[in-house]
Amino acid sequence: MELPAPVSLKQPLYVPNKTLMGPGPSNGSQRVLDSLSNPILGHMHPESFEIMDDIKAGVQHLFQTKNTATMCISGSGHAGMETAFVNLVEDGDVVLLGCTGLWGHRAAEMIKRLNGDIRYVEARFGRSLTMKEIEFAFEGHKPQIFFVAQGDSSTGILQQHLKEIGELCERYNCLFVVDTVTSLGGTEFLMDAWKVDMAYTGSHKVLGAPPGITPVSFSERAIARIRSRKTLVKSYYLDALLVGQYWNCFDLPRIYHHTISSTLLYGLREALAQVCAAGRKNVITRHQECSHRLQCGVQDIKLEMFVPNANDRLPTVNTIKVPTGVDWRKVSEYAMTKYNLEISGGLGPTAEQVFRIGLMGENATFERVDLVLNILHEAIQSTKLQEKSKI
Amino acid sequence: MELPAPVSLKQPLYVPNKTLMGPGPSNGSQRVLDSLSNPILGHMHPESFEIMDDIKAGVQHLFQTKNTATMCISGSGHAGMETAFVNLVEDGDVVLLGCTGLWGHRAAEMIKRLNGDIRYVEARFGRSLTMKEIEFAFEGHKPQIFFVAQGDSSTGILQQHLKEIGELCERYNCLFVVDTVTSLGGTEFLMDAWKVDMAYTGSHKVLGAPPGITPVSFSERAIARIRSRKTLVKSYYLDALLVGQYWNCFDLPRIYHHTISSTLLYGLREALAQVCAAGRKNVITRHQECSHRLQCGVQDIKLEMFVPNANDRLPTVNTIKVPTGVDWRKVSEYAMTKYNLEISGGLGPTAEQVFRIGLMGENATFERVDLVLNILHEAIQSTKLQEKSKI
Repeated sequence: MELPAPVSLKQPLYVPNKTLMGPGPSNGSQRVLDSLSNPILGHMHPESFEIMDDIKAGVQHLFQTKNTATMCISGSGHAGMETAFVNLVEDGDVVLLGCTGLWGHRAAEMIKRLNGDIRYVEARFGRSLTMKEIEFAFEGHKPQIFFVAQGDSSTGILQQHLKEIGELCERYNCLFVVDTVTSLGGTEFLMDAWKVDMAYTGSHKVLGAPPGITPVSFSERAIARIRSRKTLVKSYYLDALLVGQYWNCFDLPRIYHHTISSTLLYGLREALAQVCAAGRKNVITRHQECSHRLQCGVQDIKLEMFVPNANDRLPTVNTIKVPTGVDWRKVSEYAMTKYNLEISGGLGPTAEQVFRIGLMGENATFERVDLVLNILHEAIQSTKLQEKSKI
Repeated sequence: MELPAPVSLKQPLYVPNKTLMGPGPSNGSQRVLDSLSNPILGHMHPESFEIMDDIKAGVQHLFQTKNTATMCISGSGHAGMETAFVNLVEDGDVVLLGCTGLWGHRAAEMIKRLNGDIRYVEARFGRSLTMKEIEFAFEGHKPQIFFVAQGDSSTGILQQHLKEIGELCERYNCLFVVDTVTSLGGTEFLMDAWKVDMAYTGSHKVLGAPPGITPVSFSERAIARIRSRKTLVKSYYLDALLVGQYWNCFDLPRIYHHTISSTLLYGLREALAQVCAAGRKNVITRHQECSHRLQCGVQDIKLEMFVPNANDRLPTVNTIKVPTGVDWRKVSEYAMTKYNLEISGGLGPTAEQVFRIGLMGENATFERVDLVLNILHEAIQSTKLQEKSKI
């Protein structure tokens, strides 16, 4: 008996045009969106390889690295995180996770499946890790791998001292893994100068490409560690040596490893081209200035930033305390219903406590900052009025 | 010292419009390509959930299954294959791989990383597995999991007897995993009626969506097996219980598991809508008629199909013997250079021996069949003339 076709697919596709000022994805530029409609290309066509080479060069520039093992994973940012650990962790390896919010714990979810020996160093709530805290944890745990998110999108915390952490890692012969998913392009990141061994970022945050393809880079030391593993990398799909061979990272003939999405290559290539055209440092400055403007505006409307220390604040995902007596859900719904504007609530440790406002890529402009501030203010006032009228 | 931005990214993006008649990806329809330029949506927005629900219903229809655990993996077809094994295989599990070409061996590449106990049943070269061969292997190996590709794109072989294999698997309490990446929509596939426990397919073959998102489905028995695992699934990213919760498969609140690519959702949704509008059975018939027309044409131009038994021939990827004295590379280059038409060579066991011609989705029309036949003939004649002129 034939199971019938769903009637829902007879309806046209419905996609509203929203202003995405949550923690990501951010809006794509028209140039990026237009590029996505280009014809499909094969995964082994020379034109695809050329686009992949362009992307690799752009990612090397944004990471400020000469690592030849710079490539993309055909998956989301979570796949980038898994790529770090599935390649670098073997049974019993001590992995120290720097936690300033959700992402250290998400890393643990992956590492426990790989039989890594997980240790934590937790920052004080709302703060980034101090060197003292990190040094103390290194002494106690003697980790083989140290992980931290440069920007934790759940708390809006920017982890400082990456250069010092890189030096510490070198002294301990420890691999240094940095999540730059929400931070890259919004704050400085110098992979080589800071001795970072593995970094990954999001295509769909500052860069403004669609999600689904994730830039990653491995230092020579990280690649050497992978080559000297005693056990096989537990994933074929995310095996950095195979993906890297497809991405022409090792002076070996390219192999067919998987069918890459040419569509996502187009979008990422154009997004990188736009950031490079604007200038890496200019883009960072723009994001910092936008966050500064937002922080001033937050004060003006009598709200309070969640992260007390201004130097600990991530410019790209800004966390603002939900005022007492206000239901963040109603504020978020108001902004979405009336203005098609996304303002997010908290995540993980900040659930129910904060608004998260993303200023990334197309949305990192003064106009958008003012827009989101006005709407946030209006939404809070409106929900307060509603509450009062109930009493 | 700032590493400079790459000059290559100052050039415009270059994407030629090719006719993709290799083993995939195939060309996307204009409706699919247009859909990709829609604005980005968030991964937790209700409009995204609606599109995901549409996709799930479409995939259930094409798989002919009522499995609630029907979802998509945010990765290529290889990620679909890895999803099967990383979820179902535990250390020491006996996995019997039915091999009619490359894909059984690719599965082994994944399973060895998961410490599965790999066994093989190999078909005779150019043929699909007989029930006798499979039954004999089951008796000898008593597998916990049996895998076969319904269509092996490296050899152009269609594995018959899936219904009988499903019954055999049930008798042995063995999970039945079927790769339908290149076969779905080009030949009949009845997941529930044939007692298949896990199936995955390609978005970029018959369906004609871009690569990067992969439909998968698990039977209740397969999900029960995952729930009763003694060890954790070794991947967070591909964990079927987590991905399935995001895809609303288990009557639990949706979780944020990863940032899905809204772009790829649009393309797949529209591709499924087009197949459903044309009618599942009509689409299958069209692919079979196109392959039949191609096979007749191959005879007319004095070429020979690689697969001797007509019932063993996969309608979607057609393998044709490279005539003696002809260099397949030159033929392929001729077609691409002069007509922007992709005709592929062999892969794995068929390397250097065959042409592979894909008749999938947009390219499964009589016009395209005649086009590819004419160009193949012309290309072979031209390369023969070149050879003669050298002598």
